[in-house]
Amino acid sequence: MTDAELRARAAKVVPGGMYGHLNAAIFAPGYPQFFERAEGCRQWDADGRAYIDFMCSWGPVVLGHRHPRVEEAAARQAALGDCLNGPGPIMVELAELLVDTIPSADWAMFSKNGTDATTQALMVARAATGRTKVLRAHGAYHGADPWCTPSTAGTTPNERADLVEFDYNSLESLEAAAASAGDDVAAIIVTPFKHDSFEDQALVEPAFARGARALADRLGAALVIDDVRAGFRIDLRGSWERYGVRPDLTAWSKAMANGYPIAALTGVDALRGAAQTLYTTGSFWFSAVAMAAAKATIETLRDTDGIAAMERAGTQLREGLYAQAKAHGFVVNQTGPVTIPWLSFDGDADLSVALHWSDACLRHGVYLHPWHNWFMSAAHTEQDVALALEGTDRAFAETRSHFG
Amino acid sequence: MTDAELRARAAKVVPGGMYGHLNAAIFAPGYPQFFERAEGCRQWDADGRAYIDFMCSWGPVVLGHRHPRVEEAAARQAALGDCLNGPGPIMVELAELLVDTIPSADWAMFSKNGTDATTQALMVARAATGRTKVLRAHGAYHGADPWCTPSTAGTTPNERADLVEFDYNSLESLEAAAASAGDDVAAIIVTPFKHDSFEDQALVEPAFARGARALADRLGAALVIDDVRAGFRIDLRGSWERYGVRPDLTAWSKAMANGYPIAALTGVDALRGAAQTLYTTGSFWFSAVAMAAAKATIETLRDTDGIAAMERAGTQLREGLYAQAKAHGFVVNQTGPVTIPWLSFDGDADLSVALHWSDACLRHGVYLHPWHNWFMSAAHTEQDVALALEGTDRAFAETRSHFG
Repeated sequence: MTDAELRARAAKVVPGGMYGHLNAAIFAPGYPQFFERAEGCRQWDADGRAYIDFMCSWGPVVLGHRHPRVEEAAARQAALGDCLNGPGPIMVELAELLVDTIPSADWAMFSKNGTDATTQALMVARAATGRTKVLRAHGAYHGADPWCTPSTAGTTPNERADLVEFDYNSLESLEAAAASAGDDVAAIIVTPFKHDSFEDQALVEPAFARGARALADRLGAALVIDDVRAGFRIDLRGSWERYGVRPDLTAWSKAMANGYPIAALTGVDALRGAAQTLYTTGSFWFSAVAMAAAKATIETLRDTDGIAAMERAGTQLREGLYAQAKAHGFVVNQTGPVTIPWLSFDGDADLSVALHWSDACLRHGVYLHPWHNWFMSAAHTEQDVALALEGTDRAFAETRSHFG
Repeated sequence: MTDAELRARAAKVVPGGMYGHLNAAIFAPGYPQFFERAEGCRQWDADGRAYIDFMCSWGPVVLGHRHPRVEEAAARQAALGDCLNGPGPIMVELAELLVDTIPSADWAMFSKNGTDATTQALMVARAATGRTKVLRAHGAYHGADPWCTPSTAGTTPNERADLVEFDYNSLESLEAAAASAGDDVAAIIVTPFKHDSFEDQALVEPAFARGARALADRLGAALVIDDVRAGFRIDLRGSWERYGVRPDLTAWSKAMANGYPIAALTGVDALRGAAQTLYTTGSFWFSAVAMAAAKATIETLRDTDGIAAMERAGTQLREGLYAQAKAHGFVVNQTGPVTIPWLSFDGDADLSVALHWSDACLRHGVYLHPWHNWFMSAAHTEQDVALALEGTDRAFAETRSHFG
């Protein structure tokens, strides 16, 4: 069954044939929609084409597909049971691992979607403070529930009425947002760096991070880091630990279990009582297999220094792409952490160069994205990146020849 | 590691030691919190005690734990890949199976939590109508997002401002709710029968179901059935098909994949365009393993007439419990479909009899619930139910002796 045949069938039984962030129709022409299999850092589409993959399923796959230690832990748990009348001992072990690993975590709650965890964070903050308003950065992605989905289709004004926006990295704007919310600020929610689609990424200004912490303290509000996208690829201790800034609450998901479905909210002791007052749950939130996979993933990242491996591979990719772009006469911007990289072409406002180049990369066996950040995994070896760079070099040449 | 030891450790790293619907602390004293393993209709707690289980992990396990056909389908998919850069062919196959099985389904969208599907239903209805209000039954459970969680802790008034409540099975009350929302009704959301906790269950009055359909048509609003809890245990075609009432949208989850995490929204052609306008997604919504498990689960239920098996086992249980209750001098109410049964004791407003009896059942190896409906699975054989009835009989005797 080819990708084209599957799309034709999907068009009849799924609205638009596909939806959400994996909808190839919305992100670039030429991209395959359906995938058949994966191994390590490689994925094969439904037409049997192989890619060295720099999207990692948009984040979740952090150790490479079918990682032996993760698969073994998951299989061992699955042989006992998965979705039971209560959690397994693994829930306690995983919560203890998070508390031991993350300095700002005195407790953990588990769920399934990143959106579950960001939503829980606001609920904990509101329950703790008795306030309603949440300050969030303009354009930041915090999930796809009605309160945060980037599209307003199907949402009501009331569902988004308790949010006040500020500009990322602008303390002045954050202070103004707080002032406009008066004494009703429950939380500031912020991604660990600016990773909005269609824009160059921007690392957080340490002064902004510290200022957000100070403001939250002054207001008696919770500082929430949405580490769903970046978590476990910058610092296992939390993505702002390097700046000496600790959040009150952190939302985790994506890379936490190497592709198994799980999310977590971690928090400080002061918010434990508030967290306890919520009624938040889901049919599969306490399933043991994803928890076993999460424990194995985090332990493997820790024991093998997986982040250092991703940094090496990401640096190799970034340096290689710079050299190639220069050789082919392109000025490019490579932004964000090297483990969560992105490349844009200077002056390419309509993305025509990026779309052409990423499409050419695809044809040369390299899967990356024209307007959304990429993800490295610990399975990307020096050889894999070198091989991918052969493909990107041919793509730069074709794009140069196309645009003249 | 005993249940008590695990609880002590959990108390340090999870708010309250546990939360949500599987929090044993909120549902009855004496219940184990942690579970070790499961097979068929049996579960073993962390202390090694075995139970014939009538909660089925609160719904998901419909064919029994570790069902060979489901496990084989999941393993076959897992060997290829799970969380990829796009869905696998299995997404199309599963959507086609739902469309073929459910007369009101012209399309399907997949997610992880039942709450994802109920929330999407409201979004589709709002996108289609351009209206905001949703009519819902007082006390009905539709999930645990801020708009619907039974507790208001951590929610804001705005998040719940677009809901108008009616009384289940009262057309008059439904009409009044609609009138109070004026011309702004986007949807009526309703469970297929009344399965609120702490209350006897009530089947839907066919006239109410038909009246709700007619009202939705008159208003140009969507009729949404929340079949998350009851779906695949009453009628594979949808729980109101027997009344000749077809919804515009149906939310599914729990039993859909025999414990693997998945949810779905199905809908009619007229709402396909609106569904297509939403931005709704999740990191693990398109993972292939849970979809393969769902397809195998639904096909197995269909090919083996799993619902008939549950009806036989449920009838055997209900009749056995009636006879025992009578013999021990209790007047009990057994309500709801036999596949989603529940038993309450007449005049037991404070639940003291129910709590004593369910606790005694536990001690005699039968896991059921004092104030939440139970669930049958196709793995409950005549022998299993007969064995369970030996336990419930001893429990009735002890409860009689306790209360005199």
